[in-house]
Amino acid sequence: MTQRQVAVLTDRDLIRELSHIEPLDAHAMQAARARLDSLTKPQGSLGKLELLAEKLAGITRTPTPRPGRKVVLVMAADHGVALEGVSAYPQQVTAQMVANFARGGAAINVLARHVGAEVIVADVGVCSEIPHDGYVNAKICRGTQNITKGAAMTIEQAHSCILTGATLAAYQIDQGASMVATGEMGIGNTTASTAILCAITGRPVEEVTGRGTGIDDSALARKVAAIEQALEVNSPSASDPLDILVKVGGLEIGAIAGCILGCAKRRVPVVVDGFISTVAACLASMIAPSSVQYMIGSHLSCEPGHRVSLEFLGVEPLMSLDMRLGEGTGAVLAMSIADAAMKILNEMATFEEAGVSC
Amino acid sequence: MTQRQVAVLTDRDLIRELSHIEPLDAHAMQAARARLDSLTKPQGSLGKLELLAEKLAGITRTPTPRPGRKVVLVMAADHGVALEGVSAYPQQVTAQMVANFARGGAAINVLARHVGAEVIVADVGVCSEIPHDGYVNAKICRGTQNITKGAAMTIEQAHSCILTGATLAAYQIDQGASMVATGEMGIGNTTASTAILCAITGRPVEEVTGRGTGIDDSALARKVAAIEQALEVNSPSASDPLDILVKVGGLEIGAIAGCILGCAKRRVPVVVDGFISTVAACLASMIAPSSVQYMIGSHLSCEPGHRVSLEFLGVEPLMSLDMRLGEGTGAVLAMSIADAAMKILNEMATFEEAGVSC
Repeated sequence: MTQRQVAVLTDRDLIRELSHIEPLDAHAMQAARARLDSLTKPQGSLGKLELLAEKLAGITRTPTPRPGRKVVLVMAADHGVALEGVSAYPQQVTAQMVANFARGGAAINVLARHVGAEVIVADVGVCSEIPHDGYVNAKICRGTQNITKGAAMTIEQAHSCILTGATLAAYQIDQGASMVATGEMGIGNTTASTAILCAITGRPVEEVTGRGTGIDDSALARKVAAIEQALEVNSPSASDPLDILVKVGGLEIGAIAGCILGCAKRRVPVVVDGFISTVAACLASMIAPSSVQYMIGSHLSCEPGHRVSLEFLGVEPLMSLDMRLGEGTGAVLAMSIADAAMKILNEMATFEEAGVSC
Repeated sequence: MTQRQVAVLTDRDLIRELSHIEPLDAHAMQAARARLDSLTKPQGSLGKLELLAEKLAGITRTPTPRPGRKVVLVMAADHGVALEGVSAYPQQVTAQMVANFARGGAAINVLARHVGAEVIVADVGVCSEIPHDGYVNAKICRGTQNITKGAAMTIEQAHSCILTGATLAAYQIDQGASMVATGEMGIGNTTASTAILCAITGRPVEEVTGRGTGIDDSALARKVAAIEQALEVNSPSASDPLDILVKVGGLEIGAIAGCILGCAKRRVPVVVDGFISTVAACLASMIAPSSVQYMIGSHLSCEPGHRVSLEFLGVEPLMSLDMRLGEGTGAVLAMSIADAAMKILNEMATFEEAGVSC
């Protein structure tokens, strides 16, 4: 009988492991660029579609990546800060919308069907009872604590968020997903996202706080005050993504960050939705800077913080549709553009094949 | 035997007839807006998708328009001004690319297939022999004259362009098309389009001239000089779209203007592609101001004149992908967004149906 050494990995070890991400494949990117330049169009004339094709080649390690199974992972959770009257909707809407996703009646369902993507909804921290099945129960706890009074969650819960998100992504990849989009639902989550963004960038709260689902002036004033208070009470460390998540985070925001890391670790492109997803992507980028290379920007939303978070990442959006719904709605539309970019690589004729002078 | 009076309609009469366009249906738009506001999302949170859904309701006279047959009409023609060395490609590329479209190997074919649209290519004025069949022969003449020396075409040819475009659109609508996108191919056509735009807006040539397919600095200088000379030699009347078409136009540009009018006349939404199509749309808007209501902006290209022409129309683009290929490539991607907007109207659950608090 031989002796075996069993390494006991802590959550912290697992996250460290997750943060070791390979850079993109430069050879595949060069080959894709060479092919793009041989196709019957002026060089570079498909703009961002060409850059996207090149990036997808680098991510997937092949000069001719092909469209495959697309999944949007919608992470749902509640926020203690909703008690401060920062949203236009009551907290139970989170659970009700999870049921709506599960029944296929929400905007994300319609748009995902339109582009041929599957919707997977995960409860990572919903407070109320969810009046329907058909979602993944990955609940970490029943919502965050009210961040105006103290920390949103414990460090253990923060670790759980990241690892849960990564595991959900890995499971979908094991099931054949070749592209993942991020989505979320959580009444109050633009408040938490704005607090995170201010903690990271030091930008003034008033400057980056938006109207979320569409709050009026007095609710906006409450929202700004709540975020300022949350930052003052908690003093998150600007350079420590896990500290920020613990102090002013959201469970679904941590799960999205984990999902992004999980995709990058497995070398799968991940399409980042709107403001909340992009803030989660900022946290992911702080945990693993290389993860940014695996991100695809989707759209630019109305939330003022969205542009700030995209600039922090250095990621450019593909569309500007004045959307502000979240759920992954912008990301699934962008998935279709990413598929189109891959088809350009695979299906267009070269100058030589077509007998076109160049 | 009764006597019949036969009215002999001139081309001018037919264009006048074409320019009588009904306004959108305000009742259908109101009903669509009411439905959008009852769906499980914050009001207005799908941004331009909602405005598009409302507009499509107004165009189609129903609160719940549905996706149907989509066609992109690619108009191809040559330009005498190509002799001035204003393009990166030789003139025979127009004919070679028509053959490439007919064989299905061009970017427009790939992107149209991706969104489920059909490509119809029409030769409205190609000079060289087209080495393939599978396109519509609607040739008006073999290219325009060199606009640096005199008028591009006769007034009869300009009328023919408009009526040919309208007839091609009407034929596709008769065959069941419920949405049409504009596309084009023509070596030298950004030169003609820029001349038209300057004639309409009075903007300085240097300010709005771009690199088209990707010309170098010396070709750009030749292009600017050619456009300035064309405007000086021809003095088109800023307020007369047909005079502008005659003096500095392009056959495919006139045909696109006609296609847009034909769609608007038949109350069919028409998705306008990039710079050349948008300049054609400006001419259509001058012939029939109401036609603008039937236009859907697609993308914002790299050509500096594209933004100027969109602003002239008051049409907003949906995407900003740095594309500069033409062919209808941006328009077909936008068609998919228009389909998505209609599906939102038809497939989303209301707050009541989903039991979501609002």
